[in-house]
Amino acid sequence: MTHEESYAQLLKTIHTVYDLLSAASLMAWDQRVLMPPAAAEARGEALATLTEIAQQHFTSDTMGELLESLREYEESLPFDSDEASIIRVTRRDYEKEKIYPPEFEAEFSRAQIIGYQAWIEAREAQDFSKFLPSLTRIVDLRREQIAIYKAAHPGIADDYDVLLDDFEPFLSAVEVDEVFDRLKAATIPLVQQVVEHAGKVDASFTEGHFPQAKLDELSRRVATQLGVTTERWRLDPTVHPFASAIALDDIRLTTNFDEGQVHSSYFSTMHEFGHGLYESNVGRGLARTGLQRGASMAWHESQSRMWENLIGRGRPHWDWAMPVMRDVFPGEFDSITPEQMYRAVNKLGPSFIRTEADELTYNLHIILRYELERDIFADRVALADLPEAWNSKMREYFGLDVPNDTIGVMQDVHWGAGLFGYFPTYSLGNVVSLQLWQRVRQELPELDSQIASGDTTDLAEWLRENIHQYGRKFTPKELLQRVLGVEKFDPEPLIGYLTAKVNELYG
Amino acid sequence: MTHEESYAQLLKTIHTVYDLLSAASLMAWDQRVLMPPAAAEARGEALATLTEIAQQHFTSDTMGELLESLREYEESLPFDSDEASIIRVTRRDYEKEKIYPPEFEAEFSRAQIIGYQAWIEAREAQDFSKFLPSLTRIVDLRREQIAIYKAAHPGIADDYDVLLDDFEPFLSAVEVDEVFDRLKAATIPLVQQVVEHAGKVDASFTEGHFPQAKLDELSRRVATQLGVTTERWRLDPTVHPFASAIALDDIRLTTNFDEGQVHSSYFSTMHEFGHGLYESNVGRGLARTGLQRGASMAWHESQSRMWENLIGRGRPHWDWAMPVMRDVFPGEFDSITPEQMYRAVNKLGPSFIRTEADELTYNLHIILRYELERDIFADRVALADLPEAWNSKMREYFGLDVPNDTIGVMQDVHWGAGLFGYFPTYSLGNVVSLQLWQRVRQELPELDSQIASGDTTDLAEWLRENIHQYGRKFTPKELLQRVLGVEKFDPEPLIGYLTAKVNELYG
Repeated sequence: MTHEESYAQLLKTIHTVYDLLSAASLMAWDQRVLMPPAAAEARGEALATLTEIAQQHFTSDTMGELLESLREYEESLPFDSDEASIIRVTRRDYEKEKIYPPEFEAEFSRAQIIGYQAWIEAREAQDFSKFLPSLTRIVDLRREQIAIYKAAHPGIADDYDVLLDDFEPFLSAVEVDEVFDRLKAATIPLVQQVVEHAGKVDASFTEGHFPQAKLDELSRRVATQLGVTTERWRLDPTVHPFASAIALDDIRLTTNFDEGQVHSSYFSTMHEFGHGLYESNVGRGLARTGLQRGASMAWHESQSRMWENLIGRGRPHWDWAMPVMRDVFPGEFDSITPEQMYRAVNKLGPSFIRTEADELTYNLHIILRYELERDIFADRVALADLPEAWNSKMREYFGLDVPNDTIGVMQDVHWGAGLFGYFPTYSLGNVVSLQLWQRVRQELPELDSQIASGDTTDLAEWLRENIHQYGRKFTPKELLQRVLGVEKFDPEPLIGYLTAKVNELYG
Repeated sequence: MTHEESYAQLLKTIHTVYDLLSAASLMAWDQRVLMPPAAAEARGEALATLTEIAQQHFTSDTMGELLESLREYEESLPFDSDEASIIRVTRRDYEKEKIYPPEFEAEFSRAQIIGYQAWIEAREAQDFSKFLPSLTRIVDLRREQIAIYKAAHPGIADDYDVLLDDFEPFLSAVEVDEVFDRLKAATIPLVQQVVEHAGKVDASFTEGHFPQAKLDELSRRVATQLGVTTERWRLDPTVHPFASAIALDDIRLTTNFDEGQVHSSYFSTMHEFGHGLYESNVGRGLARTGLQRGASMAWHESQSRMWENLIGRGRPHWDWAMPVMRDVFPGEFDSITPEQMYRAVNKLGPSFIRTEADELTYNLHIILRYELERDIFADRVALADLPEAWNSKMREYFGLDVPNDTIGVMQDVHWGAGLFGYFPTYSLGNVVSLQLWQRVRQELPELDSQIASGDTTDLAEWLRENIHQYGRKFTPKELLQRVLGVEKFDPEPLIGYLTAKVNELYG
């Protein structure tokens, strides 16, 4: 076979895997948005089948041989060409997948399903001890995974690095420690400042009764303004919002509606739009490959947070958005100025639940979880003692006494589903979003006035040109280097931004 | 391996194939109901991948060896047991699939896509000559398929039997000829009688402007009354209505809305409900196998036609339905009696378009197409002469002059998509529905009064018990024998029913 023939064959296998996983994505979207509930068991079985068959094709010997035979071809092409990138990234994924025996994967999938069920039941009973056995099994399997990984990659410094690699490749726990220690040290006093001046921000007018149909209209108004079209996008209601790219031209956002407050679905839509825009802008040469995604979880989250927080919770946006709100809710907000609304949507303060936390305290919630994960895998805390460790940190960071484990250590689905190493990417996303924002503001000096008039086309084009089009071509750090010329995640821009906001609103 | 182990392995492969095809069904449903239109090309590619992978698993050598090794086990079990039936029917499907080379299947799929496109374009241009080349290619490939099939099954009497077998297995064209000749001879004079007394039925009050939201409410009211629950079913709008069982507990009906007339979506919903009910009632022991479907197209259509025509267009139904219509459209139908509405929904008369035809003329549309298909594959008509042959039959059967080929020979998607042998199953469905109806009425003497009060639970249970639970366990004729104790499709009950209706309404 010529190189071109081998490459064509490689691409065919990659497309097959992509199509199978795309069908699985659609099945998952459908399940969360509109599937009749009685179909849950059959859907679970079908999803398991599809991912297993995709896995078989992806880790086949043919795949390995093709990737091997294409080394020379890859080296003859520019590093950032579509072809070289597809070979390089696919080989990396292949080598990573290949080390885990299929039985291990099956066992882990089973443990995830059992863990999820146990988590549901333990939450209902407000009883951590019901969750503990399956959590223990999950953690044991993660340790087993770490052992398999380390046998294949002898140079691993820290066990936690292996967990991180599934979500934020090529990042070490030591680097995360450094970012989070600085962020934590800066955040705790800001939270205290907010608590001391809590009365300074009034958000009472954002609460009341807002019918779902109106909230939906508001979400659609902002989504359409940002560039969502029915030609390529969908926007649907669900319980836990998410974004899903079923294909490059099939981007689906979901929103949940809380009729008690006017902004929850609004910001959720902007957040998911950030994820959706990223994947909608990946270059067509990467379509139907494993590169038709974001560079990493942190990079993805940097985009959702940018639209939700840096635009949506910024002052200029409300010059455009306030008239829209008045239009959707006639008479309701006539006396509220953009400035008042800006302050209201930036109300800060400690709370128990991560997903409802504000921009400032959110990172503390993440750091708390990250520290506990580090302790678990460094054998510094026993799983049975997690609730106590959790509650003690909640007291230390937020000054809050956790009344029960359901809104404490068992509030998130992640651990029951085996997702250790995932949490830090949320705050790293915030970190990256501010690193990018500094650069964006330099390069687009008219940005504030554009946003104030509802025009984000220059910003979207900048993001497409500098980040989105590359999909998963580059590692997170290669992309940092390419876009910003820096080597590291740096928390200082985020700290500066949060400090300024707290001083402005709670000074 | 023990028999039990072989069977377990067989079942695992069958489940894999089912899950892949279930994902494909969901992709197809999604495409027709809510997919962003720009995703059409990617969706086509993904669907092709899924069906190809499913095909590979289904026709694998392992599958053949397992089926072979299970002959003894199969014979040790009762013929109608789930296990024996799954082995028997799967082997039959396997042997049939296996004879076609993958290249042939791929070539045929390509020709179908090209044929569909050409059909669309030729319709727009009202120019049959634009459709002719790809139609010729499709017919040539069908002839090739017939040759492959006949080489594997030397005893085939008539080429058309091979086409039939894809939709109505084990039925010969000679048998269809006999049924249709009698049906045609009885129908043509009835159509003449209707034309002569056309003024006798007034349906003018069923036309006007009926908002889609109201029509949707009406559809949901009747569907819920018949047994549709949100737990296991969905009901969505689309352009061309269909029913789809994504899984045994995931039954999806679709309806299209014509705001100009009050009944179009209503009957469409009842029709698709009949299809959906069939698949929702298949026994759980057949779940995730190729037997979790109806016995054949004719059997499937017998169910949809029963709910649409024998219940929906029957006199008793309107005692229940008329108050519901008045409730959904306040003031609109206050002066219309159930008897008047019953007559209106049974207005008959010749028309150009099959899908809009009434109960009586529908079968003539089918017979016309069937006769032309017979002529094509017996070399009695050249494809270039199809329009003329079509128009001449339209004159003979309906007294209508076809103004152009778009509402003539090119009105249906079937031929462009290669579906020869499909049309007759529609009218055979009508035939079977009346054969069944005779038996049902004997066994459920209270049926009319039950229907009049909106209670169809006894009927649904009778259908489940006698037909639906078996899924595709039995051949169409085995099922006829089992349910009715007869060997053949018999048009007499249908002819008697149509004659009585015409005499009642147009006497």
